[in-house]
Amino acid sequence: MIVDIKQKSRLIHQRVSVSFNYEVYFTQNLFELKNPTLAQVISADEETKPKKVVAVIDAGILKYQPELVKQLVAYTKFYGEVLAIAAEPMIISGGEAAKNDRTLVEQIQQLIETAGLCRHSYVLAIGGGAVLDLVGYAAATAHRGIRLIRVPTTVLAQNDSGVGVKNGINAFGKKNFLGTFAPPYAVINDSAFLTTLDDRDWRSGIAEAVKVALIKDANFFDFIHSHSKALGRRDMDAMQQVIYRCAQLHLEHIANSGDPFEMGSSRPLDFGHWAAHKLEHLTNYRLRHGEAVAIGIALDSTYSYLAGLLDCSEWQRILNTLSALGFTLYVPELAQKLSQQEHPDCLFRGLTEFREHLGGELTLTLLKNIGKAIEVHEVNLLLYRQAISLLQEF
Amino acid sequence: MIVDIKQKSRLIHQRVSVSFNYEVYFTQNLFELKNPTLAQVISADEETKPKKVVAVIDAGILKYQPELVKQLVAYTKFYGEVLAIAAEPMIISGGEAAKNDRTLVEQIQQLIETAGLCRHSYVLAIGGGAVLDLVGYAAATAHRGIRLIRVPTTVLAQNDSGVGVKNGINAFGKKNFLGTFAPPYAVINDSAFLTTLDDRDWRSGIAEAVKVALIKDANFFDFIHSHSKALGRRDMDAMQQVIYRCAQLHLEHIANSGDPFEMGSSRPLDFGHWAAHKLEHLTNYRLRHGEAVAIGIALDSTYSYLAGLLDCSEWQRILNTLSALGFTLYVPELAQKLSQQEHPDCLFRGLTEFREHLGGELTLTLLKNIGKAIEVHEVNLLLYRQAISLLQEF
Repeated sequence: MIVDIKQKSRLIHQRVSVSFNYEVYFTQNLFELKNPTLAQVISADEETKPKKVVAVIDAGILKYQPELVKQLVAYTKFYGEVLAIAAEPMIISGGEAAKNDRTLVEQIQQLIETAGLCRHSYVLAIGGGAVLDLVGYAAATAHRGIRLIRVPTTVLAQNDSGVGVKNGINAFGKKNFLGTFAPPYAVINDSAFLTTLDDRDWRSGIAEAVKVALIKDANFFDFIHSHSKALGRRDMDAMQQVIYRCAQLHLEHIANSGDPFEMGSSRPLDFGHWAAHKLEHLTNYRLRHGEAVAIGIALDSTYSYLAGLLDCSEWQRILNTLSALGFTLYVPELAQKLSQQEHPDCLFRGLTEFREHLGGELTLTLLKNIGKAIEVHEVNLLLYRQAISLLQEF
Repeated sequence: MIVDIKQKSRLIHQRVSVSFNYEVYFTQNLFELKNPTLAQVISADEETKPKKVVAVIDAGILKYQPELVKQLVAYTKFYGEVLAIAAEPMIISGGEAAKNDRTLVEQIQQLIETAGLCRHSYVLAIGGGAVLDLVGYAAATAHRGIRLIRVPTTVLAQNDSGVGVKNGINAFGKKNFLGTFAPPYAVINDSAFLTTLDDRDWRSGIAEAVKVALIKDANFFDFIHSHSKALGRRDMDAMQQVIYRCAQLHLEHIANSGDPFEMGSSRPLDFGHWAAHKLEHLTNYRLRHGEAVAIGIALDSTYSYLAGLLDCSEWQRILNTLSALGFTLYVPELAQKLSQQEHPDCLFRGLTEFREHLGGELTLTLLKNIGKAIEVHEVNLLLYRQAISLLQEF
């Protein structure tokens, strides 16, 4: 019965297949007692109840909803047969700065440990993308993975990062240097949180919708284009449609790309992002992520036009739409140190960092048409300098 | 074209499927120039060469193979078209203590960053299980996952942890509290390393083979039983067969269990491990992992017998085999504070910790026969106390 290793093959091939399933809910006023969504999500695990829950909340929300913690506690009492708060909710300052602080990850891991959570317990992360990324990283590594329920509170988080399979923090001066691929247990998008956003955060997240429309869905781009005024005056109905469709396109891409954990070099959802990531850093995060993405989209669309891929009218339509949405398409940091392409303060250094983060060959997504992406593995920096000049003039 | 969120379903169901493939190689003298295994593994990725490699080496090996670093460097020069060392190899003290030092993880992440590794580069981890777990955790989180090639150098690592899909470190006084599920890129088992092990480490790893035989394969148990003397006198041929079959059974279980990332509560491969983990901690790691596992197996086999699951002759056969292999089956820490079951120094507290780590309902694997496991969700502590007494007498 024992294999004779001398005679048999000297290797064993292993194939491990894993399936992750999760729902993305769209609701309103999640913590009102009459809203059963959260309780139903936890109920559905068919395990012994009540389940332990630990909540981590973005301080930014509490400014506008100071009653949130009280509401959450009341909610868990009301649905006490299903869930039980296992520790005082932890409040953390949101925004990108949170992702620079490694000790926050340790504090959340410590909270999970002290509260005695197990792998079948729940971490409830309520906040913007940075808080979700940070809490997600802590939850994914404690006990090799506590169930994470994300409650994204910004446009950006609801239509993009909050529905995806990644988490992470910044380290050694590099964005998202540490993190894992870890699908959430569930995502609950509550549109009521959007009313509390300031205008910049309301607008900022639309950039990811423009991005996914440009690479995947011309009709969706038309919708955004024709609703740019409504979106600008904070029309909630238009925004909900933008968020739903954007989330759907992201989810479809992750499910069907064949590479959800990004083991290859292709990553079309990062259209416009090489420059965006670098600009966030170069502006010391004066630009919010979506604002930087809007510039990145404008830059790579302009480059696509200059490279002869995208026709002039479509290029102009893209810039006009971004502009109508209220995005600024030029910052001086685009043009600094351009002759020293590997200088840390030069935008082009972002290409190297992007390649390094994705791994393998440089793979940039550009546009062939609105709704149709194309990949290239080489870039012409002279054309990029022209593109930057065009943005400055625009 | 836009979905009207008011009318359509209020949720999107997401399913993400991921497949991981890796080979486990069995070879000898990996870093001899004429051994192409490692170069072939890296060659096979079909990407632009040479690929960057960073090596982390268990200091324990260098005591017996002081030339290893030199050999590795010579190897990478010889196969320079395929791979290039991107930083001086990092040497770390192995053994369980390494897993208690969180700063080591940060040092490895820093090394990966400084060397400019991308997600398609390689981290080569050479050492015992603790070093592989620690390096694996650092590699899995840097850039959300650098390719990891494990070179396990102990029996335990070659037949068990080194071929699996987990990594981790200890934190907050809990074993493997932090970690991820992250299949390696490849595993290379080099039997030459086994000749350098001390007798305790040579023996220790056999405990995992006994474990997997007991729950999966009676014939394999017979093989171990009939070769216990040969194994004791360090017969390499017998050991290679034990390692191959044990690795194979582990790999089959991971691939076919339906739950490779342990999202449920069942974990048969942890037979004997609830007590083993606790005993390692209670003895301040005086017991090595395999030695603790041998006691855990003896304890849960005895309990299986007392609970009427396992017949007397099979029970005795198990204890005699473990004993013939040279394992001690009793330590005083088994019997301390037994009347205070939740006391941190009481063995029975290990049941709570085990449940908490796995999550969900307590799920213990016991034996129905040699080669046939059974799961229970409740235990009788009085029977466990009897089992401990029986081990003391044995």
